[in-house]
Amino acid sequence: MLFHVTMDVDIPRDLDPAERTAIVAEEKAYSQDLQEQGKWKHLWRVVGQYSNVSVFDVGSTDELHDLLWGLPLFPYMTVRVTPLCPHPSAIR
Amino acid sequence: MLFHVTMDVDIPRDLDPAERTAIVAEEKAYSQDLQEQGKWKHLWRVVGQYSNVSVFDVGSTDELHDLLWGLPLFPYMTVRVTPLCPHPSAIR
Amino acid sequence: MLFHVTMDVDIPRDLDPAERTAIVAEEKAYSQDLQEQGKWKHLWRVVGQYSNVSVFDVGSTDELHDLLWGLPLFPYMTVRVTPLCPHPSAIR
Amino acid sequence: MLFHVTMDVDIPRDLDPAERTAIVAEEKAYSQDLQEQGKWKHLWRVVGQYSNVSVFDVGSTDELHDLLWGLPLFPYMTVRVTPLCPHPSAIR
Amino acid sequence: MLFHVTMDVDIPRDLDPAERTAIVAEEKAYSQDLQEQGKWKHLWRVVGQYSNVSVFDVGSTDELHDLLWGLPLFPYMTVRVTPLCPHPSAIR
Amino acid sequence: MLFHVTMDVDIPRDLDPAERTAIVAEEKAYSQDLQEQGKWKHLWRVVGQYSNVSVFDVGSTDELHDLLWGLPLFPYMTVRVTPLCPHPSAIR
Amino acid sequence: MLFHVTMDVDIPRDLDPAERTAIVAEEKAYSQDLQEQGKWKHLWRVVGQYSNVSVFDVGSTDELHDLLWGLPLFPYMTVRVTPLCPHPSAIR
Amino acid sequence: MLFHVTMDVDIPRDLDPAERTAIVAEEKAYSQDLQEQGKWKHLWRVVGQYSNVSVFDVGSTDELHDLLWGLPLFPYMTVRVTPLCPHPSAIR
Amino acid sequence: MLFHVTMDVDIPRDLDPAERTAIVAEEKAYSQDLQEQGKWKHLWRVVGQYSNVSVFDVGSTDELHDLLWGLPLFPYMTVRVTPLCPHPSAIR
Amino acid sequence: MLFHVTMDVDIPRDLDPAERTAIVAEEKAYSQDLQEQGKWKHLWRVVGQYSNVSVFDVGSTDELHDLLWGLPLFPYMTVRVTPLCPHPSAIR
Repeated sequence: MLFHVTMDVDIPRDLDPAERTAIVAEEKAYSQDLQEQGKWKHLWRVVGQYSNVSVFDVGSTDELHDLLWGLPLFPYMTVRVTPLCPHPSAIR
Repeated sequence: MLFHVTMDVDIPRDLDPAERTAIVAEEKAYSQDLQEQGKWKHLWRVVGQYSNVSVFDVGSTDELHDLLWGLPLFPYMTVRVTPLCPHPSAIR
Repeated sequence: MLFHVTMDVDIPRDLDPAERTAIVAEEKAYSQDLQEQGKWKHLWRVVGQYSNVSVFDVGSTDELHDLLWGLPLFPYMTVRVTPLCPHPSAIR
Repeated sequence: MLFHVTMDVDIPRDLDPAERTAIVAEEKAYSQDLQEQGKWKHLWRVVGQYSNVSVFDVGSTDELHDLLWGLPLFPYMTVRVTPLCPHPSAIR
Repeated sequence: MLFHVTMDVDIPRDLDPAERTAIVAEEKAYSQDLQEQGKWKHLWRVVGQYSNVSVFDVGSTDELHDLLWGLPLFPYMTVRVTPLCPHPSAIR
Repeated sequence: MLFHVTMDVDIPRDLDPAERTAIVAEEKAYSQDLQEQGKWKHLWRVVGQYSNVSVFDVGSTDELHDLLWGLPLFPYMTVRVTPLCPHPSAIR
Repeated sequence: MLFHVTMDVDIPRDLDPAERTAIVAEEKAYSQDLQEQGKWKHLWRVVGQYSNVSVFDVGSTDELHDLLWGLPLFPYMTVRVTPLCPHPSAIR
Repeated sequence: MLFHVTMDVDIPRDLDPAERTAIVAEEKAYSQDLQEQGKWKHLWRVVGQYSNVSVFDVGSTDELHDLLWGLPLFPYMTVRVTPLCPHPSAIR
Repeated sequence: MLFHVTMDVDIPRDLDPAERTAIVAEEKAYSQDLQEQGKWKHLWRVVGQYSNVSVFDVGSTDELHDLLWGLPLFPYMTVRVTPLCPHPSAIR
Repeated sequence: MLFHVTMDVDIPRDLDPAERTAIVAEEKAYSQDLQEQGKWKHLWRVVGQYSNVSVFDVGSTDELHDLLWGLPLFPYMTVRVTPLCPHPSAIR
């Protein structure tokens, strides 16, 4: 089941630099693990913004919430979720 | 080069039904042709709306404009375009 | 799986009165059938508006889209969908 | 009498962690007590957000205000209230 | 129980003038009857707009919805309802 | 001359608690004095918000500005002013 | 007493051209009469828009409403009113 | 003196096709004449929209208003004007 | 050449009180000097807000930018500029 | 390939003044270097705002993102990107 997710990141300026480096690295590992599992199906950067556009493929809304809530950068993100479904004109 | 495109469709109620049927069929053929060429890379329906979320893969902004302007339903659509680029955490 | 859905209805003034009566009756039957199946779990009127707030319980986003797209009043509605999940403080 | 309430939570980053833990626990107890009394009739989490959608069943607008104003997390919440009433198509 | 209600009126230009005159007169009678019953407690015109700001005093949200839904101009209005309660600094 | 005024209050978290208590008490006294003079004609709390809806009855826009500017909580308020006038259907 | 007023004009395309010409001429005469009386104190065109920015000097909100409601183009205008008062740094 | 201007075009569906063709041709000629005079300095299409972004170089705000008001498509446009000035880091 | 300018002032709470007093006094002197030169043609306070509505009369957009950028309170202001021109119905 | 970019700058008040001076100088050098390369094709200041309107001419969306992400003031900017293409009426 597919969900369109946008994430705008705003890390506070006064976050300790070491903590910032660590949390960004954790975010990357977390994201790549979910991508390898096929749950974080697409991940693109929005040009000129510290934001991404993503598509998740999950079994339920609960699972999606758990994945998003667990994002290391979640406390510094604005997240918007839109449910998707197959388009009748899509060839795949 | 990737672009995120959303299209909200609002076909006027007083459009001749035969014309409506024809234009929707043309739209489908037009879309599937571009999908087969690999230019309309992703196409999803937004749940509960006569809208889609798409990703286009084109050689230039001019090409993208020509593809969108040529959509049979373009006169009845609200289109929004957001440029994308690879995300540093993406594995593909 | 739960989804929060709001529907704002705006039936065109020039719709034939008999057609209007028929479509509103069809909407009622359609809605009550889904309520009896347990898929349209909650349905409330918003005070002072031709709008409702609903909660759907469905197996997938595809199923939800089909149910909403099939609403007799769908062509005259603005629909917004928000995915829900259990709240950790909920007792039920 | 039913009211639709949404609550967006934004706990300040610099709140003392012990205070944060305590206030979140108080919020949970406060919420569960009202749920058991039947006043906080529904409580759902919005997927991907530190927000909930709720339905309250209270005797008056004054009572509702007192319940909301007393929420331990109220100082850190954005609250929106929409009055509801029975829908003519609802079967319950 | 008090509710703050705003009503923006937009009567279609092509409404038959006799029907327009009749409906505006019915609206006035309807409003004055509710004012005399004490249910439509305050009614002010917004300067420079075909809009009013009102305060209703009703026994329930259901009663309020019935009163608003029954307004002769309801099909041509945008209505917004905000629940009120006594202010701790109010002297009356 | 009547003016509709809304006030949203947002007292900074780091205000000294004694100062906060004092300023809230001053606000109450200031408000009640104006109510007794008949200038602050109506004052209601918005349910679920640290906001009020008020109606002022003043001799001029200058007088209204002076009254609002002098509110002890003014530095922590967002204020919106809408001029009102008698409604042709009002019975009082 | 001064009020800042903006007026956006949107005359329907299907208005009879003679009626349009007449109503625009009436609007001009109406406006110039109020300007000569000193009540419509300032009148400017917004560059690139069928809109004006105005300042009215009237004795009361009721008088202002009557003046605006009486504008020949009022049915085709969106009007916004903001009360003004002397600025402490103004030299006049 | 430079002004940033955006124009969104929305030609009514029921405009006579010959009139539509004529007015679009007049718009093109009008625009190209101003470009040749150096007054309409830049003109770009927004990708995926019947809109343009332009920069005008004119002697006064009055002149700019006259140029925009005279656009053959002006009745079907939404125009927004933003004044520009040289940027201290610009090399030209 | 006339420009409509609105300025919303938001001086940070933690600004040193002496600095605040000084900067407000400088702002007043700066404003009055420009008013005396005829460049800051109108200056009004918006009722109930720490905001003003102004009209500037300047020779160019560059001059206007320099005047605004030089405002002592500029770092604490939100400024919006709208170009004006003579209205065809204005008598002056 | 052209992109319209707006940048709103908001440097935090508590940034060390020397750091502020340095970063603004770096921004200028960075910008001028890109202008000389022909990639930052136009750069204008918005009157009355710490904002610019720019047009970039780049080979791809990736290149544009890298240029914007590398702006010394990027952490303090709000950036919006709109893809452009040639306008059929443009003479150049």
